[in-house]
Amino acid sequence: MTFPKQIQNLIDAFERLPGVGPKTAERLAFYLLHVPDNELELFSNSLANLKKDIFLCKTCKNISDAEVCDICANDLRDNDIICVVETPLDVFSLEKSGQYKGLYHVLHGVIDPLHNIGPEELYIDDLLKRIENKAQGIGEIILALNPTMEGEATAMYLRSKFKSLKFKSKITRLGVGLPIGGDLQYADETTLNRAMEGRRIYE
Amino acid sequence: MTFPKQIQNLIDAFERLPGVGPKTAERLAFYLLHVPDNELELFSNSLANLKKDIFLCKTCKNISDAEVCDICANDLRDNDIICVVETPLDVFSLEKSGQYKGLYHVLHGVIDPLHNIGPEELYIDDLLKRIENKAQGIGEIILALNPTMEGEATAMYLRSKFKSLKFKSKITRLGVGLPIGGDLQYADETTLNRAMEGRRIYE
Repeated sequence: MTFPKQIQNLIDAFERLPGVGPKTAERLAFYLLHVPDNELELFSNSLANLKKDIFLCKTCKNISDAEVCDICANDLRDNDIICVVETPLDVFSLEKSGQYKGLYHVLHGVIDPLHNIGPEELYIDDLLKRIENKAQGIGEIILALNPTMEGEATAMYLRSKFKSLKFKSKITRLGVGLPIGGDLQYADETTLNRAMEGRRIYE
Repeated sequence: MTFPKQIQNLIDAFERLPGVGPKTAERLAFYLLHVPDNELELFSNSLANLKKDIFLCKTCKNISDAEVCDICANDLRDNDIICVVETPLDVFSLEKSGQYKGLYHVLHGVIDPLHNIGPEELYIDDLLKRIENKAQGIGEIILALNPTMEGEATAMYLRSKFKSLKFKSKITRLGVGLPIGGDLQYADETTLNRAMEGRRIYE
């Protein structure tokens, strides 16, 4: 016995999403069968319109509803710090935490040879041009890439590129260690080792 | 800082799905930003077309792409057994397991006073009419409702209704106990008690 075609199509669409398995996909599709028509239409429209009038900011490559994003257009931000992140969602996360007041640069991924993603697939050239153009104006570049294999490799690649541009200011990475509210017992060995290396004087 | 409106709309739509929290909704919406346009269109269309040409079978109330579903229209099924289930997905699950060859009746929910769902919100009247019309023709009704509070209450309600129709044949419920591959240690007390009550002679 097979599902009616319309339902199977929706199940297939849900299954293509990351982290959604066949059972969840079925559950969601059947849930939507009982949802009022206008809510279903809203969902369908929000998918159809998702990419309409969405731009990549021409400076930092963050997603934006204008050609230049709110952050780049904001004169009150420290424009001598650039925080390099993997995805637009990382920008939103850092903005939510509310402390950082500099600018961003979104790479839209990391160097990942296993998935055929090299430096030219990312917005690395735009970053290098941005640094060249501002010359002495940049006091710090924060490489806020994820502490994963690919994130580390990308950070190393970027650092070597910055050096070859004769970039003399600070290059930093985010602190690594136990998360707040975390538990020594459940931390993996690498995290513990890195937390130990990164220990600070407690005064 | 807020997300661009188109993205926020999609995040909101995902968040209304059961079991999808704010973080997952954000992750899914941002994932879809990178998906090819035709795949996004497919997803949007499958939502828009979900309820088109989907009927409830006029006999068993299962979802179907015709007025009478494949199961009710199939002469090879045992038409003297009716298996009463909560949702269409339950029918598909039982059909996948492949043993049951009788008919179904889908209630589309359970009696749930806390959520204002009474017997008149479900397809109970249709079930009672179906039983009345077939009179002596039904040899067994299986109440395959979930072993939850609401499922039990609905089963009790149905049984009393069947009795008042002078329904004399077998009324059964599904076996309750440890699932295959389950683990005594992780079973809750009620399940263990019910498994103990439902023990069988091992020969």
